[in-house]
Amino acid sequence: MEKLCLGIDLGGTGVKIAIVDKKGNIVEHSSFPTACPADPKKIAETIAANCRKLKHFKKIRSIGIGVAGDIDQEKGIVRFSPNLGWKNVPLRDMLSKKLRKHINIDNDANVAALGAFWLDSKGKAKNLLCVTLGTGVGGGIVINGEIYRGSTGSAGEIGHVTIEPNGPRCNCGNHGCIERYVGAPYLSNYGREAVRKGNGKIIAKLAKGNIDNITPALLAEAARKGDKEAKEIWNKAGERLGILFADLINLCNPEMIVLSGGVSCSADLMMKSMNKTIFSRAYQTPARACRIIVSHYTHKLGVVGAALLAK
Amino acid sequence: MEKLCLGIDLGGTGVKIAIVDKKGNIVEHSSFPTACPADPKKIAETIAANCRKLKHFKKIRSIGIGVAGDIDQEKGIVRFSPNLGWKNVPLRDMLSKKLRKHINIDNDANVAALGAFWLDSKGKAKNLLCVTLGTGVGGGIVINGEIYRGSTGSAGEIGHVTIEPNGPRCNCGNHGCIERYVGAPYLSNYGREAVRKGNGKIIAKLAKGNIDNITPALLAEAARKGDKEAKEIWNKAGERLGILFADLINLCNPEMIVLSGGVSCSADLMMKSMNKTIFSRAYQTPARACRIIVSHYTHKLGVVGAALLAK
Repeated sequence: MEKLCLGIDLGGTGVKIAIVDKKGNIVEHSSFPTACPADPKKIAETIAANCRKLKHFKKIRSIGIGVAGDIDQEKGIVRFSPNLGWKNVPLRDMLSKKLRKHINIDNDANVAALGAFWLDSKGKAKNLLCVTLGTGVGGGIVINGEIYRGSTGSAGEIGHVTIEPNGPRCNCGNHGCIERYVGAPYLSNYGREAVRKGNGKIIAKLAKGNIDNITPALLAEAARKGDKEAKEIWNKAGERLGILFADLINLCNPEMIVLSGGVSCSADLMMKSMNKTIFSRAYQTPARACRIIVSHYTHKLGVVGAALLAK
Repeated sequence: MEKLCLGIDLGGTGVKIAIVDKKGNIVEHSSFPTACPADPKKIAETIAANCRKLKHFKKIRSIGIGVAGDIDQEKGIVRFSPNLGWKNVPLRDMLSKKLRKHINIDNDANVAALGAFWLDSKGKAKNLLCVTLGTGVGGGIVINGEIYRGSTGSAGEIGHVTIEPNGPRCNCGNHGCIERYVGAPYLSNYGREAVRKGNGKIIAKLAKGNIDNITPALLAEAARKGDKEAKEIWNKAGERLGILFADLINLCNPEMIVLSGGVSCSADLMMKSMNKTIFSRAYQTPARACRIIVSHYTHKLGVVGAALLAK
């Protein structure tokens, strides 16, 4: 019998469920939206019901779930999830009672890193970092094919590495975290500032007179249409990611850095300044040895990584 | 028969050799100075002769050697050692031919981290960082009781993490590395600057009118005698180490950070500003979970860590 695993990706906007084979190929999947703040009991019931509906459900060997938030992997508890509005929810046991299977739980950035290891590196990059560029900047570390969690399960907070110690305050309390510069809302703000100053004509035109319409996707479109200000925003973002990656390369010497998340779609606009910065700052041998790629599986990383947690 | 291992710590100024038991206790030791640039053949011969002279030599099960420089652990080659003036020296095979034993080789910062794991944490801190504060700032990462080397063997370059992206140029080519601020020559320079400006009266007095006499040890003495400028130099160094450690805590979530090397003797003068910075910047759970200590075995870490490489 084929070995199948079930993965659940529980985020602030929706739940993805998938049954995958041992190589991470999705065999069957479903999804439903999350209404936030979400009642834990209801969410667990809906997840369980949706899992049982899958026609391969009886064939699965293990279940894994990735949750946006601070997770106690050992106790199976969602310690804190601002997106879901949860504190200390024993989600693993709630679900395993309903599904009568052993369940592994981890945070969304960690399972995404595991997904990137199996999907993007095909299980080959022994040491890999996954950086999710979205509203926030998430991070996960894979060492020897396994998630590296550190001593309290919170390792991999790549988004809160300091890029500029006297920089603006980040939501986490630190100053000048990379997230504070390349997180989607901050990128959008740079675009708004440019328009307010009367620059960024193409940005303004695409925003149709309302700067609230400015998003990273709009800034990417503007840059591709030749807008100087938009190009500069992406250049600067690439430079800052380059500072971060030079540090990560000197420190972790990874074989691969995988970029995922919405903002990673614009990685081509950042690559030049990013690589220039990395090679001017990092040691050359590890810099040359590190492949930086954009994930081909951004929307699947979480659910596939979750499914393969038990592997 | 008791299991004994032999460790060799090959540095720019001297060689330490020790036979240790499985817990890292030194049973027998010897040492001799290195004349630099050192002839590899002569060094290998002298090391081998000194090893054979040890009365427990016949009882050893394995040999490990730590070398200051860039090491290819798999091929057993010293790729580059500025201190020894070596390039591509196949030291492992040169030595194993002479000593007729299998030999493991790694760089000095990595073996020191392994030494700190066995001696300072008694083999208990699963995830540990060791930061050697000396002329340079060295780093080693231990994960699950083993040295983490990354994909090309160069992981752990903690000294070259960027603290200030527009800071002064470091010898490595990057700008604003932590080494560029807290490495011994730079600390000494801050003292010299203070004296040149007519401040730091106690520093000046201790230096007996010659600013070339200013060293971190002298600055520590001055601070302990109440010199305001010297205190400020150590405060600032603590703050900068705090920025670094906050990043390392968010990223690696270690159980322990062990400080070693000459400058770590003055860690008490840095602890207050260091801890304040860490707790204002890092996530609270991993910050509280991380013990930062000064090694009780600074001078033994390298040789004991080398001995235990095969463990």
